[in-house]
Amino acid sequence: MSRPALFGGIEAGGTKYVCAVGTGPGDCEEVRFPTRDPDSTLREAADFFRAKAGERGPIEALGIGTFGPAAIDPRSPEYGRIKATPKPGWEGADVVGGMRGALGAADLPVAFDTDVNAAAWGERRWGVARGLDDFVYLTVGTGIGGGVVAGGRLVGGTGHPEVGHRRIARVEGDPFAGCCPFHGDCLEGLASGESLRRRWRCDPRTLPAEHEAWGIEARYIADALINLVCTLVPEKLILGGGVMDQPQLLPLVRKRFHERNAHYLDLRPAEELIVAPELGARAGVLGAIALASDLSRRARS
Amino acid sequence: MSRPALFGGIEAGGTKYVCAVGTGPGDCEEVRFPTRDPDSTLREAADFFRAKAGERGPIEALGIGTFGPAAIDPRSPEYGRIKATPKPGWEGADVVGGMRGALGAADLPVAFDTDVNAAAWGERRWGVARGLDDFVYLTVGTGIGGGVVAGGRLVGGTGHPEVGHRRIARVEGDPFAGCCPFHGDCLEGLASGESLRRRWRCDPRTLPAEHEAWGIEARYIADALINLVCTLVPEKLILGGGVMDQPQLLPLVRKRFHERNAHYLDLRPAEELIVAPELGARAGVLGAIALASDLSRRARS
Repeated sequence: MSRPALFGGIEAGGTKYVCAVGTGPGDCEEVRFPTRDPDSTLREAADFFRAKAGERGPIEALGIGTFGPAAIDPRSPEYGRIKATPKPGWEGADVVGGMRGALGAADLPVAFDTDVNAAAWGERRWGVARGLDDFVYLTVGTGIGGGVVAGGRLVGGTGHPEVGHRRIARVEGDPFAGCCPFHGDCLEGLASGESLRRRWRCDPRTLPAEHEAWGIEARYIADALINLVCTLVPEKLILGGGVMDQPQLLPLVRKRFHERNAHYLDLRPAEELIVAPELGARAGVLGAIALASDLSRRARS
Repeated sequence: MSRPALFGGIEAGGTKYVCAVGTGPGDCEEVRFPTRDPDSTLREAADFFRAKAGERGPIEALGIGTFGPAAIDPRSPEYGRIKATPKPGWEGADVVGGMRGALGAADLPVAFDTDVNAAAWGERRWGVARGLDDFVYLTVGTGIGGGVVAGGRLVGGTGHPEVGHRRIARVEGDPFAGCCPFHGDCLEGLASGESLRRRWRCDPRTLPAEHEAWGIEARYIADALINLVCTLVPEKLILGGGVMDQPQLLPLVRKRFHERNAHYLDLRPAEELIVAPELGARAGVLGAIALASDLSRRARS
């Protein structure tokens, strides 16, 4: 019996890189290390894949889910690169070309997408969105981002979604100006982990479960979900990210979502519609593996 | 040479029905009449299609773009019907079954979708969105609705979008409570033609071009577009509907959109991105013809 094809996956975050080799959740070996300058970081990733190739055999394709903004459209001359970013050294970095170079494999098939698109794809292959064609993966962490699947495909016309930079209705009397350097009070400016830290002048993880912070947070997230539902009518809304680790938050979001819908849209109960991810922190890197295996299958057919 | 296949289209509005027979913009014959109770209305539509069948031959398929909410998912047991609506007599009305019955054609292929999805599809086939796979058609009239195309398909998971009922950020100091009976100050509640009428206590068409009303209106529409762009990154945003007939409004929306984006998303110039529909008032019924011809082609292949 021939060995199953192996794939490589990278969750390329702004603070850490997670690399994995395998075929899925059951057999992936992973490594994680801090994100430094592009050259050193991509070389460290390549060292891992080379070592694993020696043990288990070469990978057939590589999937990368990166922090953004990133040029993910294969028709773009900038394809495979990081776009304008405040992260030192990374603006214009050629991630796809750099990985192929560091691996000495100029022809390696590489799927290049955002970290949140990869996470969404991972949840669709092996997680809570298994078999679904219409859903959203929203991550509420230091920033806010999302991957959108509609009609079984990742959504994005001339670029990738930036769902965190949508404008939302403020909670009446909320005096916080918002912390987004571009927009002030967009969703990320009002509801990201960073906004919680600045608004309440503390590590948000230290705020008690009954603190008013969580009611306000839940209303902002609920409004973002209402807007996503009005546009996409998805089958599931998956809420990930560090801020969602607060166990009181998901039930609060569901309650506020129900109130703000006001019985208008005929939806399934909020408990079924708005859910936690199933793959947790592994969604991104496993999604990168899933993107690689899809690319490989398409290349063979 | 055989005659080209003919298709029927219905733009089924809440105040008027528009019916057409033909193959496209160049040869469609149309009729329009007021929407009465379901039985009389569907019978009047059927009379038109029968008369045209006598002159030009039978239609191969029928497309219907209806006011909503409507059960457009073929997997739903309610498929083909109008859902909960305040319009007297229409709640639960079986539009697809009723048309087949009135035409005495139980096997006629019928495509059933919303009026705004049909209009979007019409603009994609013959209008300003020709050849585009990712765009939004937004209509700002008495109410606000939209059709969303992503990856070349109409978007909608468990139902059709209701883009007018999204929540948006209020203009600072705007004292108007909004007129949506469900949500108060959702987009439709703050920016529909009906909201303009109530807010300014007059027919909005009588408001001068330099009236502050249009600046506020442009900001609300711009914010809706920002949110749609953050989710979908479309290639075009098409703005139709009676309120957009005000010639000063489209340039104002583009200006506000540019300000609210604050150079964050790397987009094409607002003049190319945010455009008027090309088919105008014919988009809906021509889109219904396009839906019918697509259905017919799928049925044959």
